[in-house]
Amino acid sequence: MSTIWKSRYAYRMERVNSSAIRELLTVSERPDVISFAGGLPSPDVFPIQRFEEACLKVLDHSGASALQYGATEGYQPLREMIARHIGRYGIRASIENVLITSGSQQALDLIGKLLINSGDHVLVEAPTYLGALQAFNVYGAQYVSVPVDEEGLRTELLEEALRSAPKFMYILPNFQNPAGVTLSEGRRHELILLADSYGVPIIEDDPYGQLRYEGEHLPPLVVVDRENLRRDNGYSLGNVIYLSTFSKTLAPGIRLAWIVAPPDVIRKLVLLKQGADLHTSTFIQWVAYEVARDGFLDDHVRMIRQVYRQRRDAMLEALQEFFPAEVSWTRPQGGLFLWVTLPPGADCRELFRSALEEKVAFVPGDAFYAWEGQEARRHMRLNFSKPTAEQIREGVRRLSVAVKSHLGRYQPA
Amino acid sequence: MSTIWKSRYAYRMERVNSSAIRELLTVSERPDVISFAGGLPSPDVFPIQRFEEACLKVLDHSGASALQYGATEGYQPLREMIARHIGRYGIRASIENVLITSGSQQALDLIGKLLINSGDHVLVEAPTYLGALQAFNVYGAQYVSVPVDEEGLRTELLEEALRSAPKFMYILPNFQNPAGVTLSEGRRHELILLADSYGVPIIEDDPYGQLRYEGEHLPPLVVVDRENLRRDNGYSLGNVIYLSTFSKTLAPGIRLAWIVAPPDVIRKLVLLKQGADLHTSTFIQWVAYEVARDGFLDDHVRMIRQVYRQRRDAMLEALQEFFPAEVSWTRPQGGLFLWVTLPPGADCRELFRSALEEKVAFVPGDAFYAWEGQEARRHMRLNFSKPTAEQIREGVRRLSVAVKSHLGRYQPA
Repeated sequence: MSTIWKSRYAYRMERVNSSAIRELLTVSERPDVISFAGGLPSPDVFPIQRFEEACLKVLDHSGASALQYGATEGYQPLREMIARHIGRYGIRASIENVLITSGSQQALDLIGKLLINSGDHVLVEAPTYLGALQAFNVYGAQYVSVPVDEEGLRTELLEEALRSAPKFMYILPNFQNPAGVTLSEGRRHELILLADSYGVPIIEDDPYGQLRYEGEHLPPLVVVDRENLRRDNGYSLGNVIYLSTFSKTLAPGIRLAWIVAPPDVIRKLVLLKQGADLHTSTFIQWVAYEVARDGFLDDHVRMIRQVYRQRRDAMLEALQEFFPAEVSWTRPQGGLFLWVTLPPGADCRELFRSALEEKVAFVPGDAFYAWEGQEARRHMRLNFSKPTAEQIREGVRRLSVAVKSHLGRYQPA
Repeated sequence: MSTIWKSRYAYRMERVNSSAIRELLTVSERPDVISFAGGLPSPDVFPIQRFEEACLKVLDHSGASALQYGATEGYQPLREMIARHIGRYGIRASIENVLITSGSQQALDLIGKLLINSGDHVLVEAPTYLGALQAFNVYGAQYVSVPVDEEGLRTELLEEALRSAPKFMYILPNFQNPAGVTLSEGRRHELILLADSYGVPIIEDDPYGQLRYEGEHLPPLVVVDRENLRRDNGYSLGNVIYLSTFSKTLAPGIRLAWIVAPPDVIRKLVLLKQGADLHTSTFIQWVAYEVARDGFLDDHVRMIRQVYRQRRDAMLEALQEFFPAEVSWTRPQGGLFLWVTLPPGADCRELFRSALEEKVAFVPGDAFYAWEGQEARRHMRLNFSKPTAEQIREGVRRLSVAVKSHLGRYQPA
């Protein structure tokens, strides 16, 4: 009966397909399955009590404003708090540099809308964040991929890729999703110099930056850009748009994130956001401000780091204990994920099915590539933030059974 | 410093301009100004106490789920409640017909993304909702306008407009924003028959349908479509996508609305929403469900109707008392707005400035047209939901001073 709609879909719908991965993953939600598949924070670290107090305070004192329409830019005290907060990482921003978005996914959509014409090239890491590809696909992006290794984006391959004149680069420098790797300081400088010399701007996506469990904090690309190139003109930023979120530090269910950019870019994004959802929930912004304020967010993030560090360690230990020697994995210094690489010829889509029989799930690596191919199927992404240390040990044991059987079957050599 | 961005904006940015109207309206927020300009519900009717109870209940019992990521389609009990709720208006829908959106503005954006290719024609009412034009402009829509009168869309002019083969029609049948008029039952049938014979689908935007202060409820277009055309195939809907929202019945600051459509259209919209913001805040959906449930929403809407009916009556009385005879206005049976028409030659942009000197504000009518021209400038939209009855009387008195002076100056004949 609704064929009338089908015949009217816009051309761009051809580029938007149901993600086979998401279909796959619904089965991993069965209660008897230990899932390393999602990118979910642990509910054990949600500050529920603090949310209760914040809701009551906001409604008692400011219900009439907090439930009303608000400014597209976002709730002013929250924007100011974010501008201050990122100052500690050397990002010099004022309120005109900050736009509140309905999660980082909306930031990616607005950036796609702002920058991508159909057929434009976008330079991404291989592998990269699945959700970014989904957001950019709608606008007709084509991709140029540059592989990552343990030090992040392989900048020695970057110049070649920049010759295809990408519209922008999309980079996850810290504890990358999915690979868990971090862009080294040397490469950050190389990346910025190359970006500048080719005139290609950067979207720096940093959802996990605060969740570092070991090692030294590295300067964000937006800071390296300013310092390297002496863009010392007060608050105005340069070639890098910086994204971050409360999803991994407060809670993802509030859908609150932000974009830091030069004021004239923010003004354009505000117009696009106005047409896209008018503004992000006023109430949720007031509540998040009340939750985060007075240093609570910092204390809370310290607690999260402890919990997730233990889980990461539990996963690294279990992998060491149970996995065969021909399998390797990254050792993330922070974030939520690690990345497992099987020998050439292995197929993690196949493996996913046998893993499910062992009642354990992960995301097959090919979901995170802008291209398809056998190489992409050697990998899997494992999440260590959601399951407990006990579940991690048992889950890795189960997974090792499936891995050994898979390698036995597919690599008789 | 950010010229690098400017040179990279997508072509579509040329169609997205800062709305002069919004700039204009910021001045209307001064506390000494009585504003009929916004489309804001009255904070007097926000159920703040009920929100407090709902927040505590949700966090106490389900904090771990309500703060976590959720399904793109929306919170299942909320979708079920909406499917039941619209059943009373004859809309037969099940949960697969319902998608939760981040306000109706997001519904309009997703529909633009789904249906509009650059250059496509969209048929709209003249005047129509400003935010819809903003959402569709991004995707390169061209417009065909059909005027409204006291009975809504002038269906006798529709056939001519349908010959331009619009991709879809965007119609506000109840207490239209901005004109406050309602599509008569006879015209609803004419519209549906013409839509069917030309094969042009309809987006039915119904944010105010529940806020009827007098007269009989009329069947939604989605129902007329099914009944007229015997589309009697159970739950699947036909040529009409139906939109509504909690913004005018619970509170706009929660940004919760919904789309009702055939399941295969919903599935496409879900993919687009996934790329646009992953999902709407889980927490706010759980809270809204707790607020609305057990009949509270119905009782609450009854109370809102009483308050707004009094304010509408106060505005109609004041207009009668203070305005000169050559000015006319609509008499809305519901909703938030009425529409004032000045004699030919009047210019409500000019009038806006002198009204501000009298400390009263409204929205100049030309904002609501897909085209520019002198005719569009004869109108103004007045909101009666936000100001109190006393403010309405005083505001209309002030406005009448500006109107009389404007007519004296511009129409010496």
